[in-house]
Amino acid sequence: GAGADNDLYINQAIVFIEDAIQYRSINHRVDSKSLWLYRWYYSRTCQWILSLTITVILALAFIEEPSSLTVTSDVRYRLPAWNPPCGLTESLELLCFLVFVVDVSVKSYLIGWKEFWKNKWLMAYILTLIVSLTDWIVSLSFFCKENVRIRRILRPFFLLQNSSMMKKTLKSINSTLPEMASVVLLLAVHLSLFTMFAMLLFARTKDNQQDKEWVVYFRNLPDSLTSLLVLLTTANNPDVMIPAYSKNRAYSIFFILFTVLGNLFLMNLLTAIIYNQFRGYLLKSVQSSLFRRRLGIRAAFEVLSSLKETPASAQQSCVSIGALLQVLQKTEMDCRCKQAIMRSLKMCSCDQLSAAQFQKLFEELDKDAIKQHPPSPEYQSHFMQKMQFAFGHAYFGYLGNVVALANIISICVVLVMDADKQPSERDDFFLGAINCFFILYYLLEMLLKILAMGLKRYLSYPSNRFDGLLTVILLILEIATFAVYGFPHPGWRPEFMGLLSLWDMVRLVNMLIVFRFLRIIPNMKFMALVVTTLLDLVKNLRAFAGILVVVFYAFAITGIMLFKGAVVPLGNTRNSKAEFTGSCVHISLKKKVISWCFAHFQAEVIYCLLYVLSVYLICRWAKIYFVAWWLISSVIWVNLFVALLLENFIHKWDRRCQRESLSDIEYQRTVELMFRDVLEEPTEEELMEKLHQHPHLQLCR
Amino acid sequence: GAGADNDLYINQAIVFIEDAIQYRSINHRVDSKSLWLYRWYYSRTCQWILSLTITVILALAFIEEPSSLTVTSDVRYRLPAWNPPCGLTESLELLCFLVFVVDVSVKSYLIGWKEFWKNKWLMAYILTLIVSLTDWIVSLSFFCKENVRIRRILRPFFLLQNSSMMKKTLKSINSTLPEMASVVLLLAVHLSLFTMFAMLLFARTKDNQQDKEWVVYFRNLPDSLTSLLVLLTTANNPDVMIPAYSKNRAYSIFFILFTVLGNLFLMNLLTAIIYNQFRGYLLKSVQSSLFRRRLGIRAAFEVLSSLKETPASAQQSCVSIGALLQVLQKTEMDCRCKQAIMRSLKMCSCDQLSAAQFQKLFEELDKDAIKQHPPSPEYQSHFMQKMQFAFGHAYFGYLGNVVALANIISICVVLVMDADKQPSERDDFFLGAINCFFILYYLLEMLLKILAMGLKRYLSYPSNRFDGLLTVILLILEIATFAVYGFPHPGWRPEFMGLLSLWDMVRLVNMLIVFRFLRIIPNMKFMALVVTTLLDLVKNLRAFAGILVVVFYAFAITGIMLFKGAVVPLGNTRNSKAEFTGSCVHISLKKKVISWCFAHFQAEVIYCLLYVLSVYLICRWAKIYFVAWWLISSVIWVNLFVALLLENFIHKWDRRCQRESLSDIEYQRTVELMFRDVLEEPTEEELMEKLHQHPHLQLCR
Repeated sequence: GAGADNDLYINQAIVFIEDAIQYRSINHRVDSKSLWLYRWYYSRTCQWILSLTITVILALAFIEEPSSLTVTSDVRYRLPAWNPPCGLTESLELLCFLVFVVDVSVKSYLIGWKEFWKNKWLMAYILTLIVSLTDWIVSLSFFCKENVRIRRILRPFFLLQNSSMMKKTLKSINSTLPEMASVVLLLAVHLSLFTMFAMLLFARTKDNQQDKEWVVYFRNLPDSLTSLLVLLTTANNPDVMIPAYSKNRAYSIFFILFTVLGNLFLMNLLTAIIYNQFRGYLLKSVQSSLFRRRLGIRAAFEVLSSLKETPASAQQSCVSIGALLQVLQKTEMDCRCKQAIMRSLKMCSCDQLSAAQFQKLFEELDKDAIKQHPPSPEYQSHFMQKMQFAFGHAYFGYLGNVVALANIISICVVLVMDADKQPSERDDFFLGAINCFFILYYLLEMLLKILAMGLKRYLSYPSNRFDGLLTVILLILEIATFAVYGFPHPGWRPEFMGLLSLWDMVRLVNMLIVFRFLRIIPNMKFMALVVTTLLDLVKNLRAFAGILVVVFYAFAITGIMLFKGAVVPLGNTRNSKAEFTGSCVHISLKKKVISWCFAHFQAEVIYCLLYVLSVYLICRWAKIYFVAWWLISSVIWVNLFVALLLENFIHKWDRRCQRESLSDIEYQRTVELMFRDVLEEPTEEELMEKLHQHPHLQLCR
Repeated sequence: GAGADNDLYINQAIVFIEDAIQYRSINHRVDSKSLWLYRWYYSRTCQWILSLTITVILALAFIEEPSSLTVTSDVRYRLPAWNPPCGLTESLELLCFLVFVVDVSVKSYLIGWKEFWKNKWLMAYILTLIVSLTDWIVSLSFFCKENVRIRRILRPFFLLQNSSMMKKTLKSINSTLPEMASVVLLLAVHLSLFTMFAMLLFARTKDNQQDKEWVVYFRNLPDSLTSLLVLLTTANNPDVMIPAYSKNRAYSIFFILFTVLGNLFLMNLLTAIIYNQFRGYLLKSVQSSLFRRRLGIRAAFEVLSSLKETPASAQQSCVSIGALLQVLQKTEMDCRCKQAIMRSLKMCSCDQLSAAQFQKLFEELDKDAIKQHPPSPEYQSHFMQKMQFAFGHAYFGYLGNVVALANIISICVVLVMDADKQPSERDDFFLGAINCFFILYYLLEMLLKILAMGLKRYLSYPSNRFDGLLTVILLILEIATFAVYGFPHPGWRPEFMGLLSLWDMVRLVNMLIVFRFLRIIPNMKFMALVVTTLLDLVKNLRAFAGILVVVFYAFAITGIMLFKGAVVPLGNTRNSKAEFTGSCVHISLKKKVISWCFAHFQAEVIYCLLYVLSVYLICRWAKIYFVAWWLISSVIWVNLFVALLLENFIHKWDRRCQRESLSDIEYQRTVELMFRDVLEEPTEEELMEKLHQHPHLQLCR
């Protein structure tokens, strides 16, 4: 009937508006049941459960069998890691798989069969699940004793497919691949030509003293290739040329030419290519988000305009305010926005809204939340007003910074004086007394500021929150110290009592004081700019970080599988050291290296590579593994990072002058806002064309 | 009289047009004598003498007293370098100084006194000369035994002041300095805060086994600072964290945080800042060159229009064609351009030229020289025509590439097989025979190509010139080999005869063959793009390279002065090794390190720094010297390079699609052409305003 139809339209409008708010695609089923399922699927609980499941399945690697999650990384000292009984991790895994099965079925159902066949990600999702479940069954039937577990390498896929940002980024990276491959090919040609040159230049001579270069670095083709590859990472840099260089200085020309061409030109060419590809990346992604939002709003308008209660005006479709209010009440959205929209709806004089008016109403969503700090309390007494003026003034803040600096310097002085002292000679009296005084000052500063600004206004500034929290923690620590060890007095160095020794307590206090010094950042203009850029970058980098996690995880798991059991504690057997150096089978430390690579980071991977290559010069597999690792994580990822940083920073920099006038108002800075003045609004025709292509929504007109 | 005036005007016009061609400023004296002096000063001979003088004075350092220009760099083996007698280098220096004195006087005279006082570069030039001459006198009065020679550090200034490009670039770099300083300040804050954290974290403990981290890296404030600074260069990367890491994995968080913040964020921020500054740099410099050219042409027009013979038309000033022809004949310019301008002048129907027509005539200067290859010879015989078709076809070139690849592969195979053989076991027969065959093929290919294309057309392609030259050299080498060692036969490994042993000859041939393989570059599209970009970059980078030479030179001289006499050959005295390790005075190898740093290059400087810092941990001066070196040459210069590469590459890339259609025509690519479609033509008003500001030229109207 008409009532049911109306309910359906209202529900559709609610879902479309929610889609618009979350920048989601509106291409899903729109019948009543599906809408309910859709809202349920995208409800916070469901999404939270899904995220938790992904976290759990990824975290399983830390407790599964060949894990090395122990306090020390040294194979000689560490205790055997806890081994969960067979079936524990497996049942957890099954649980996760079941959640994923539900997830994929709901997703497939919601987008409809037609769309499903076009969606390669969903197909891959299903395939991954099937392979994982098969592998799981195999695993259980071997009572967890099987060697290869394919499903582990597949795990990061679950993280990947759950984030649309990541999928988009991956697509972008994918489209850069041909050009990157060209540069890598160039690098390969460069490397091979220079390898041949090197082998001809540094050939074996009759004089054994003279051909050190040949013996160490260019003995045969793989050796030469490795030497030059490592030179490309600059890891063995002057070492590789020293024997030749001390024979004849002219040999250095070869190495300089190789380094300049390879490192300076070809490597930076990669940066240029990636930057060129990603120049418009952020803008494009924000533009498509805007399109999704406008489309969702427009779709809501269209379904609301076909409500039966609306008088059918032939000229223009429009929406009654009553219907919209009804929709708004049921929509989940930010409180501030909802109120603002309600307010402007009530101020609207007419009874009907046109499409343009409807869109305009929801522009509130795009606006920045201008943060208004609560007002300071108004004191009656003249004295209090003077106090308020004095302690609310910026100079009082600067004084606080100066005192914090003085504290840092005093700690530094004590550290320099105490650097070489034995722990038993140390006297904590001086530092204890000084810190006691400074912490009292911090407390006083906090209280006076609260007095001047009022608690609410004080807490509305992030720098004050940071400051206050640290002051409170410092106070608690100090009180605890005094309670356990008494007040500072000369020779205040008692033994271990309670949880931490006095020395540890004092160190902790000092570290917190150093950390508290970061409060000066907002006071320095350039620093503030840099820090806000970096924070923006972190926001925009989430997708990249996700992909990085995926790559790290896959590499770590592959590494663990490849080099499993290769770790033999060195000190245990007598001749293990001889074995270690000689053979490739007992590649001790290998896993340590992998956990290094995993734990450390990009920049360190180069050294890691060198280390590995020097130890396992003969082991081809390890070489290939680590070269791939270096290329992907160090070369490509670092360049991606540089490209994004350039993009972000240049945008920010261009806008800095405009911002300066508005610096008093704190914006909630988002990527969308950064680009607001360059974004193009989608046209009416584009929106309607897209709406008519909707696979499930049949518009009346 | 009028005749003398007319002569003066003609001369002025000639000089202005030459200024326009060379992109020089026109702000110089314009009376007859000055014009003669100006043309003499900018004549090829004079400029060549000036360049030679600069080269000579810079090259003096290689033969002056503490030079280390010997074949081997190893202090144990090398012979003492040749020491020129006192007075030899000094008299050469005096000669150079005299040339510079002439140079500075002519320059100062030509720009006039008024301008002279505004020109800081000229003042600095004079000051440098005075200081150098004073130092020279002091040096001679001490009979070359004095310790400090200030004039050596000042030498690169002569290189700097002679290039307007370098001065401009330096100005650009200078304007980036405040922002760079901010980032360096941030880095310093980052470093000092983390140093304090590190000292608190890795303090001395009671257990001596446990505090390895403290003993090795964080013993006191300078040690900690150095450890973290070197970590910033990633040189001591996992080493520094391994003791702490093997104690507790959580300590790695500290190092990861430090590396990510410092290396990934702050260091790349420097790249972003420099790129941001240099984004418009090329465009701006090309734009100002264009302005200078238009201004010169306009000035020529103005002086020619005030010739007495011209009928004074009240409305518009104009120039007679006869006068212009007279000027053109005396002007030194590119032959092709001159002919083109003459041709269009003759085609001109009217007798007088307006300003716009005058400018238009000289636009020929901006046009690219379209290189037209001479036509192929036309053969009468049918057979020859078929031959011409077959061997002029692109496929014949591809076949040549395939054969070259086959040759490379065969050399590679022989190298791999012979890698471990003793020189006495080696048999050059196989390689000799193969190479003989291949070189014959190359010769045949060359001859057939010449037959098909004609010698002129063949030589007009750079790839053919490269190819042909190498083929001829290979042929000569091969004939020489056969003449000395006879034809290849099994057991073809005779002893040393003539200039080079057979083995060396074969190696040389192989190297040339590998080098010849580079002819494939133009056949691969992406490679060709990359190579042309790189070549462009090299052109644009000349100014930067010059500044780099200046910096390198100054650092090398400072280093030699600082660490002079610190080199003690290790093997000579018995206990020198003990001395070496213990004391800071006998810093052996120091100079070797400096010559390393000087000889190697950017990318290697990081390792160099590590090496130095690890050896001379206590020597503060060396530390400061090398940190400054690292900052300037590695961090700033590499970032400048990346910025320029990005700029160049992105411009090229954007234009690639447009170019593709024109790829048959080879352009003489210059920076000016790259930007032609974005350049703005200066307006009439701008030109005239600038002309009226000319300090020496009084325009009639």
